[in-house]
Amino acid sequence: MSYTFVLAPDSFKESLSAKDVCQAMALGIRRVFPDANIIHVPMADGGEGSTEAVVDATGGKLMSHIVQGPLGEPVDGQIGLHGNGTSAFIEMASASGLHLVLANQRNPLYTSTYGTGELIVECLELGIRDIMVGLGGSATNDGGMGMAQALGYRFFDHNGKELDGKGINLAQVDTIDTDNVHPKLSEVTFTVACDVQNVLTGHEGASAVFGPQKGATPKMVEQLDQGLAHFASIIERDLGNSVTDIPGSGAAGGLGAGLLAFTNAKLKRGIDIIIETTELNKKLAQADFCFTGEGQMNHQTKYGKTPYGVLQLAKKLNPAMTVIAIAGSLSGDINELYDLGFDGIFSSIPELMPLNTLMEDASYNVSRVTEAICRILKSSQSHTR
Amino acid sequence: MSYTFVLAPDSFKESLSAKDVCQAMALGIRRVFPDANIIHVPMADGGEGSTEAVVDATGGKLMSHIVQGPLGEPVDGQIGLHGNGTSAFIEMASASGLHLVLANQRNPLYTSTYGTGELIVECLELGIRDIMVGLGGSATNDGGMGMAQALGYRFFDHNGKELDGKGINLAQVDTIDTDNVHPKLSEVTFTVACDVQNVLTGHEGASAVFGPQKGATPKMVEQLDQGLAHFASIIERDLGNSVTDIPGSGAAGGLGAGLLAFTNAKLKRGIDIIIETTELNKKLAQADFCFTGEGQMNHQTKYGKTPYGVLQLAKKLNPAMTVIAIAGSLSGDINELYDLGFDGIFSSIPELMPLNTLMEDASYNVSRVTEAICRILKSSQSHTR
Repeated sequence: MSYTFVLAPDSFKESLSAKDVCQAMALGIRRVFPDANIIHVPMADGGEGSTEAVVDATGGKLMSHIVQGPLGEPVDGQIGLHGNGTSAFIEMASASGLHLVLANQRNPLYTSTYGTGELIVECLELGIRDIMVGLGGSATNDGGMGMAQALGYRFFDHNGKELDGKGINLAQVDTIDTDNVHPKLSEVTFTVACDVQNVLTGHEGASAVFGPQKGATPKMVEQLDQGLAHFASIIERDLGNSVTDIPGSGAAGGLGAGLLAFTNAKLKRGIDIIIETTELNKKLAQADFCFTGEGQMNHQTKYGKTPYGVLQLAKKLNPAMTVIAIAGSLSGDINELYDLGFDGIFSSIPELMPLNTLMEDASYNVSRVTEAICRILKSSQSHTR
Repeated sequence: MSYTFVLAPDSFKESLSAKDVCQAMALGIRRVFPDANIIHVPMADGGEGSTEAVVDATGGKLMSHIVQGPLGEPVDGQIGLHGNGTSAFIEMASASGLHLVLANQRNPLYTSTYGTGELIVECLELGIRDIMVGLGGSATNDGGMGMAQALGYRFFDHNGKELDGKGINLAQVDTIDTDNVHPKLSEVTFTVACDVQNVLTGHEGASAVFGPQKGATPKMVEQLDQGLAHFASIIERDLGNSVTDIPGSGAAGGLGAGLLAFTNAKLKRGIDIIIETTELNKKLAQADFCFTGEGQMNHQTKYGKTPYGVLQLAKKLNPAMTVIAIAGSLSGDINELYDLGFDGIFSSIPELMPLNTLMEDASYNVSRVTEAICRILKSSQSHTR
């Protein structure tokens, strides 16, 4: 009887997609166990790479759709269609991400989540029933006002003038008009991948904590914070939703709050959404060995990162399952990682080399360390006591 | 019943002695198998670190003895006394090594193996019965003439003038006087660790192949080559030994030939000498797992390096024994290493870092990768099929 291996790694940022990591691991396993049953489940944690992981793990399809970028310029937003044809994953950063704005043009008074809303509308048009939205990496601080505008919500100031959805306009919002909201919006389910616990406003709020890295000066932080507070008060008055104090409402410049207010969204840990979407639990049910990993593993691994989520699930399903993590790079106190329950944690670096060479050789190196692990797994079978 | 681990690594050059590597490995094993039976056999391949390995592996004693360095200056030569009290290991480089001569003073016409001879004499005085001499790393090209002089051999030119043992005098030797040879010399056994196959003279000889790296110009190479040929002819005439064409006679500037001519030496593969001296075969007899390793592992590993020697012995004793190699750094085609028969080959580098940091952290890193390997060995016991 041959062994069953489940491969559930995250991507190695800037060098390998999660699918690539699976393929490299599989190559190493096949060299030692040619008859192994190998199940590829490319993973992500709700952040970068999640769209691709959902597509790859479910046999889905990656679609592009031109939408407005953070400053209104056209960008190539992406929708990851699940293999089931009725779910989709959107990373807000693909339409409204900080990486889309040149460093000297970053100013969260003027950036908008409008493009993220356009991606959602595209999903509605495609007949998607379950929309998952990954937060993180945003260039915006608009409380989801831009996204809502794309969905058909209209915002007016006290003079009745319509306002565009961007940070600077939050404080001017006087009324919200829902007459033109997309008719399908209420028919779909939203799940939001959110791994920060920040509330919408105040010292631990979106503007104060994340504003500066998006280009906000201290004065702008104050302006944006007051804007979000005002916007939330109008939402509560007109829509009846109180979203200010919900942990995660401050994620992605308040898009967390916006999704809670303008859709039926539930916030969840990103890794849990990916685990459910990829049906990792079913795939792990028959596994002898589970390989996971990530480009960087360190003390942060325990904060909702993929390898830890995979580990928790695997050990819950079968405490005797061997869960091995392969990292592009391991740093800091490894004890903390072992305390989490991994059965083995390996770096894939064979020798010191320039970073770009390491990136180029990443697939080879992952296959080699996987092979080495499998070889000793195989050899050790003769020593059971 | 607990597992037995034999730890038989070489040193990691410039960072860890073989004993240090054993301790680091043992630390990693103990974290996973607290009751393991762990046998430390610090190894070497007859080259650098062999003296220390013999002392450490046999519970012997390292002794210092002031002798003449390559250019006659006093140096701190070392003798590794075996724990049995009757054997000793000498590295010729500790008395006559290239590292003892400043780069701009390297000139093999004037360097001598006299100090190596003094270390041998010290062994004779100590009552040692089995002397092992490690070649390699020499600054000399004197055919062992200096060593022989220290042992009591006297060399004269055709005018009856006594000659010092150094490369430039080889061509002047007319007679060899053995009247004052140390009386104990014939009573002891010499074994010479030699891993090169070079003959004494000619294109593949000591001067042509190794002379340039010791500072010889092409003209000096010619002079030295002719000197060694002449010296060998006098040896054959006066002592009856023909040493010119024996593979290894060209090692260490012809010290291989000198030991064959002036003592009863037998040349052997360095790793085999260390294996015998440390009685590795007895220690491996009860092992479940054998860990070996070296600072650098690459395609050269198969040429008499410690990990390969250990592997060959272990698999000969028990083909089912799991032999795992841990390298400071792995380079080149790993397939070649697996083809040799290792069950697992791992680098100990956790992340990219400056070389000096890597050197400083070497012990920690070796213990960590050993721990990871042991953890999966332990975990995999539940999956035997």
